[in-house]
Amino acid sequence: MPNTVPENSVGIVTPQCLHFDEPLLLRSGKSINSYDLMIETYGRLNDKKSNAILICHALSGDHHAAGYHSKDESKPGWWDHCIGPGKPIDTNKFFVVCLNNLGGCAGSTGPSSVNPDTGTFYGPDFPVVTVRDWVKSQVALMEKLEIVQWAAVVGGSLGGMQVMRWAISYPEKLRHAIMIAVAPKLSAQNIAFNEVARQSITADPNFHNGRYLEHGTYPKKGVMLARMVGHITYLSDSAMRDKFGKAAEPINSESIAGNFGRDLRTGKLSFGLNVDFQVESYLHYQGERFSERFDANTYLLMTKALDYFDPTVDYDGSLSAAFANSSCRFLLMSFSSDWRFPPERSREIVDALLEAGKQVSYLEIEADQGHDAFLLPVPRYIDAFTTYLQRVSDEVNS
Amino acid sequence: MPNTVPENSVGIVTPQCLHFDEPLLLRSGKSINSYDLMIETYGRLNDKKSNAILICHALSGDHHAAGYHSKDESKPGWWDHCIGPGKPIDTNKFFVVCLNNLGGCAGSTGPSSVNPDTGTFYGPDFPVVTVRDWVKSQVALMEKLEIVQWAAVVGGSLGGMQVMRWAISYPEKLRHAIMIAVAPKLSAQNIAFNEVARQSITADPNFHNGRYLEHGTYPKKGVMLARMVGHITYLSDSAMRDKFGKAAEPINSESIAGNFGRDLRTGKLSFGLNVDFQVESYLHYQGERFSERFDANTYLLMTKALDYFDPTVDYDGSLSAAFANSSCRFLLMSFSSDWRFPPERSREIVDALLEAGKQVSYLEIEADQGHDAFLLPVPRYIDAFTTYLQRVSDEVNS
Repeated sequence: MPNTVPENSVGIVTPQCLHFDEPLLLRSGKSINSYDLMIETYGRLNDKKSNAILICHALSGDHHAAGYHSKDESKPGWWDHCIGPGKPIDTNKFFVVCLNNLGGCAGSTGPSSVNPDTGTFYGPDFPVVTVRDWVKSQVALMEKLEIVQWAAVVGGSLGGMQVMRWAISYPEKLRHAIMIAVAPKLSAQNIAFNEVARQSITADPNFHNGRYLEHGTYPKKGVMLARMVGHITYLSDSAMRDKFGKAAEPINSESIAGNFGRDLRTGKLSFGLNVDFQVESYLHYQGERFSERFDANTYLLMTKALDYFDPTVDYDGSLSAAFANSSCRFLLMSFSSDWRFPPERSREIVDALLEAGKQVSYLEIEADQGHDAFLLPVPRYIDAFTTYLQRVSDEVNS
Repeated sequence: MPNTVPENSVGIVTPQCLHFDEPLLLRSGKSINSYDLMIETYGRLNDKKSNAILICHALSGDHHAAGYHSKDESKPGWWDHCIGPGKPIDTNKFFVVCLNNLGGCAGSTGPSSVNPDTGTFYGPDFPVVTVRDWVKSQVALMEKLEIVQWAAVVGGSLGGMQVMRWAISYPEKLRHAIMIAVAPKLSAQNIAFNEVARQSITADPNFHNGRYLEHGTYPKKGVMLARMVGHITYLSDSAMRDKFGKAAEPINSESIAGNFGRDLRTGKLSFGLNVDFQVESYLHYQGERFSERFDANTYLLMTKALDYFDPTVDYDGSLSAAFANSSCRFLLMSFSSDWRFPPERSREIVDALLEAGKQVSYLEIEADQGHDAFLLPVPRYIDAFTTYLQRVSDEVNS
């Protein structure tokens, strides 16, 4: 972190581990007898307990959404642009709760935890968890925190899917549902990319059918590959172009045909299998860094949760019917260059909400950063987010 | 093939292997002393030798562009929709030449050939070949066939890049350059996907640094994965939606929540790592089939040839300058849903040609099939292609 805590940062934060003894029956029919959830909270719960906001994380997120765990931490939590004093989710006004979802790998019970029934790592025996299961566990968390109604449940991407499930299954438990860069269900293309990621991991000889921890190894290369594929889909074509020069630029300062006169680096094209272009070394770096912190079995679980998400499953395929009992107000935001969950997919949700007669605000934001935009300080996004939550604060803090 | 040869098919065809003894100096500075090229020809060369068309293949193509090798072959050559009597490239009017490029794996000299200097497989020692090198070898082929000028050089995707190189480097040797679903250079996103494909192959424990043939093995899983990634980028999001139901449909006839009332198959969601959705089994099938016929080292070479392609390299980054000496006429066609080489990329070429004062026709075709459309019988595409080549035939056969 910087030498002094920035004024609009929540500063140094300490995660807590909460233990749950009530068994959780999962959608698969299996159940987990007891589990831990790692959480972080920012801000103060008001006397009426009306100002709590739940943050739901996406595929690779966790409970550490804002601030720093220590002075030595180089980067703040994953949504620090949006959470803090004076930021959209203003910690001077709201009590913010963020958790690591069940099946995660940042402290909550997941595949890399020890199964108390067997004394060994869950590994591949950890049950497949769905968005519905996560929300169920989040209800247990809510009860433990003695919160009766969230001022808002907020999330982007897979996080937004959890918000949708809250609005459908627990209508009385939230005032506002804020979904960003979301889709009502994965497209075939989305699932296809997820399957490539899964195959990359399971094909790694160090995967050992998911029992790599018992073998004292890790499918690092497979996780790297999975993340590389994922990362390409989080960025837009134009974001990549901006990052790596007008087109794909060689890493080298000279090609064999002379200097291209562009944004190049050192030497010549390799004419071999070496990295020749900046975008390659960037992806390697991203994949490498990710593989150092993320559990392979968790990655598999998260992609299956995405694939399985379908809020219309109990409503004969009708999204508006799914929302019939929702009583919260809705805000959706999407980003023009997001090709993973493009604006059309948000509009499907907006249309269903309108058909169901719900109160919905929708903003499509011009942004070049692709799906990743929801994590970035895009000015119009930040402004709209701030304005909306200012109104929510007026409601719940008055 | 069908029981009787269809009227518009070139019928049973027999490839020929041509040997070249003149060393080929490659762009990398290495050279190949001698090499074989597998070719197929369809139709008859006219007396003036003015009606020859060269077909350049894309990443996974080869010399077998049309007709059947035997009555037992289930599918015709890869561009059978476009080559045959009465088809766009009408074999009643043209003499059509198609080759397997150097470095390929369908009979031309490549990594899976035996290096005459060492007596073992080239494997990873086969030099990286570029589009420029291929076109150079195609010039040698042209001379062997005693053709002085092609009526047209035609290709889609990576094939189109070879056409571009012909028009730039050998302006007097072709009358028409026909480029379909092409780009002047890869985008960073294109290169990123190629790098993921390469990493998938080289990470396979059976890859053995490219010496898998000597080890009596094959990186099948890696090639499957590479193809799965590639395949996703060849299809459009909407093509996948059309193929696999309105969204991604589970493979099963019932979900745990009852029948979705959609296009489903057998049983329940697996709640495990099994294949749950049709798109997954489709991709597995495509990857599997591809891995049975395609050499891993060739796949690596082809993706590098794509990455390295830059026709502006000798022209200070100016595409119009690159075309300055071209004297052929140009036809470009692109497809609306192609997100690998989208219409914008074709328009960059069209703009450069206009700036250079060249004769160019350009057609952007509404088609849902993504990049793959260039291989498919899209009516407007077939019509435009036919009409253009009819005019070429009038020129060269009169």
